[in-house]
Amino acid sequence: MDVTKVQLDEKDIPRQWYNLAADLPHAPLPPLGPDGQPVKPEMLAPVFPMNIIEQEMSTQRWIDIPDEVLKMLYLWRPSPLYRARRLEEYLGTPARIYFKHEGVSPAGSHKPNTAIPQAWYNKQFGIKRLTTETGAGQWGSALAFACALIGLECKVYMVRISFEQKPFRRLMMETWGAKCTPSPSTETAAGRQILKEQPDTPGSLGIAISEAIEAAVSDATGSTRYSLGSVLNHVLLHQTIIGLEAKKQLAKIGEKKVDVVIGCVGGGSNFAGISFPFIADKINGAKIDIIPVEPESCPTLTRGPFSYDHGDVAKMTPLMAMHSLGHRFVPPPIHAGGLRYHGMAPLVSHAVEEGLCTPRAVHQLRCYESAVLFARTEGFIPAPETSHAIACAIDEAKKAKEEGKEKVILFNWSGHGLMDLVGYDKYFQGKLSDYSLPDADLAAGLDAIKHHPKAKIR
Amino acid sequence: MDVTKVQLDEKDIPRQWYNLAADLPHAPLPPLGPDGQPVKPEMLAPVFPMNIIEQEMSTQRWIDIPDEVLKMLYLWRPSPLYRARRLEEYLGTPARIYFKHEGVSPAGSHKPNTAIPQAWYNKQFGIKRLTTETGAGQWGSALAFACALIGLECKVYMVRISFEQKPFRRLMMETWGAKCTPSPSTETAAGRQILKEQPDTPGSLGIAISEAIEAAVSDATGSTRYSLGSVLNHVLLHQTIIGLEAKKQLAKIGEKKVDVVIGCVGGGSNFAGISFPFIADKINGAKIDIIPVEPESCPTLTRGPFSYDHGDVAKMTPLMAMHSLGHRFVPPPIHAGGLRYHGMAPLVSHAVEEGLCTPRAVHQLRCYESAVLFARTEGFIPAPETSHAIACAIDEAKKAKEEGKEKVILFNWSGHGLMDLVGYDKYFQGKLSDYSLPDADLAAGLDAIKHHPKAKIR
Repeated sequence: MDVTKVQLDEKDIPRQWYNLAADLPHAPLPPLGPDGQPVKPEMLAPVFPMNIIEQEMSTQRWIDIPDEVLKMLYLWRPSPLYRARRLEEYLGTPARIYFKHEGVSPAGSHKPNTAIPQAWYNKQFGIKRLTTETGAGQWGSALAFACALIGLECKVYMVRISFEQKPFRRLMMETWGAKCTPSPSTETAAGRQILKEQPDTPGSLGIAISEAIEAAVSDATGSTRYSLGSVLNHVLLHQTIIGLEAKKQLAKIGEKKVDVVIGCVGGGSNFAGISFPFIADKINGAKIDIIPVEPESCPTLTRGPFSYDHGDVAKMTPLMAMHSLGHRFVPPPIHAGGLRYHGMAPLVSHAVEEGLCTPRAVHQLRCYESAVLFARTEGFIPAPETSHAIACAIDEAKKAKEEGKEKVILFNWSGHGLMDLVGYDKYFQGKLSDYSLPDADLAAGLDAIKHHPKAKIR
Repeated sequence: MDVTKVQLDEKDIPRQWYNLAADLPHAPLPPLGPDGQPVKPEMLAPVFPMNIIEQEMSTQRWIDIPDEVLKMLYLWRPSPLYRARRLEEYLGTPARIYFKHEGVSPAGSHKPNTAIPQAWYNKQFGIKRLTTETGAGQWGSALAFACALIGLECKVYMVRISFEQKPFRRLMMETWGAKCTPSPSTETAAGRQILKEQPDTPGSLGIAISEAIEAAVSDATGSTRYSLGSVLNHVLLHQTIIGLEAKKQLAKIGEKKVDVVIGCVGGGSNFAGISFPFIADKINGAKIDIIPVEPESCPTLTRGPFSYDHGDVAKMTPLMAMHSLGHRFVPPPIHAGGLRYHGMAPLVSHAVEEGLCTPRAVHQLRCYESAVLFARTEGFIPAPETSHAIACAIDEAKKAKEEGKEKVILFNWSGHGLMDLVGYDKYFQGKLSDYSLPDADLAAGLDAIKHHPKAKIR
């Protein structure tokens, strides 16, 4: 345990992803189509290649990672596991705090863990071009990077206000050869319709998703598909390499038991990545606190019901059984753009319903305070999203101090904040504030789903 | 050799720095004071702590790295050595291309390799506050990071035009708790004088150095010192950990012989870091091509004479024996800001004079072209400075292809370009051009040093 970071050799990388769907006490609820019936694989075929649809619907526990995918993951994986010694010392905690450093990828976050396999499976299936949407650009840049390596064209619809105000991740995408268009655009019917109605709209993730899906399904050659960066089962599956590596790394230094596992949640993929392999242990009887952390301003898991809802504003996606604030809900403009999503991955939502993890919400200012403390003790500047996990890890370390317990705390350091320094600037200037969602706004958002089918797992 | 990246465990990190001054065929030439005599240690005492001055003047071959320094270096060291397989495949070269990834440090470049020990030695000496200057901010951010970890105040004078146009590295510095002031400032006599003469000056590195040194030596409590990020012997010494690690990593995968070692050069520290341990082999008879790469627009080694010159415009530094374009030379505003320096580290200059390395100059557009090719094959987006080394490595790989030789090429990937994407944007938009220094401008710069003492090593 006497190291700063624990590395694994490439030969020790996990060779299979872990699928939580195989082990949940109750079976996951299927997505529903427009007819209210479970979606069949072929219904998704215009959107995703069949090899990915198979993964999406699989209940097989372990799924092999293709060798060619592993070779590309080696560019930054296995990622280092750090012991946050200076943070521990600062807090005076008896807890040992570990974090997985996912900021070492070329795109700077965990997102390439799924961008690479998604691009690879599409290429295998004969696809030549991928479309996707992006908000602040984390996902778009990850997919652009993956497409550059694998040799696919990449088209990203980027929410207009981000495209204009946050040019740097767009420049990353262009450096990797992707085409990035502000959304709404005149390239799609959905975009043209919105522009006709609201010429000055700043755009939204919901609109961008609609454009990206339309651009994929309307390619008459059939060689374009759509790619999503979170929420779906196969995306979460690809991220489990994070937690699987962490287990090997903890074993390597003799840590036998983890007490607390923490990840921030927006769509749910980085949290799933670190936690699902530990949720498997919990299902098998291990005593572990597993904590997804979300913003108070977008409290999907802590205040949104478990319900059937669409993944996008325009209702182009199937209905998914998930915690949701309603597909029309527009989260306030906090700086952790990656956590501004009305819904939550069905598998994460399901795990919460099973009592396997216990969500928590934190305020923005606490997150920035935690991020700055982290940067000044551990050196690395975290993304605003990541700071939610850090704030919770600090709380847990303080609790361990109060209890006098030598706990082991593990959290996912999902990405660096070098492209997000404007948020830090506003924090230092005192221009940021906290925001609790008023009950009336919560109710208004939920109104959009009151007629939807109820989701129940038992 | 069948790996993507070679890692070393923390226990295998080099425990001593290598001092090239011990092995140069002819003794290094001393810096000269205002009286034309070699500078004595005590003359530097108001500027640097004595433990650093001792290192600066040492001719001891190996110098121990303190354990506490190692513990902080572990945050990102040993840095991974990569094999650039996809780049090799793209080029169809029989060469094996390796690079040291120095972008994994919290500040994103090699600079923290010396920022940490400098801050630590100052702290040991009882110093409470460090001052420094920075251009685009690479060095300032590295020192801010080091001071945060070690518990020193940090004051950075940042060239005004960069302060205003490139706020992101300033925000990094502030996140780490440093105070960053646009230079020239009203805080120093030097700054006030310049502002009186040229109220609208964009500032320069030369002015910022003068302010930082003045702020250090004028602290009446004696608890402030100055810190420099390149050029000086002790800075280069600290960087040799790069090449020492690379040797261990190459040995680990069975690479017995390196044919070409490449680094970009501005002040010389990252090049020295990768190359000095190999120059030692060359002195002992090994056949290695060692190539410092500089911009055509600032051709210090390829067109500047080996001469005695000052390190700054205001002539506050001693005279150093180095290649120089003249201390009044202002390089054109290319995007590789870290390579815009009129002089060159004395030890690097000396090694060139001894015929131990062979400098080369490249044009800006070739560098960006190489950077984009690198990003699209190897994933990581390089800093504009780093792209000079990449361009040269590509040339050498093509040469190996022409010659049909299985060469081993090693270069230093000195930092990532995530804070430098504006340059990429201009490149994609066709707004950048090449620039060869006209003979008349070269002559005008050199005019400033024509009356200085000549430097000769044999």
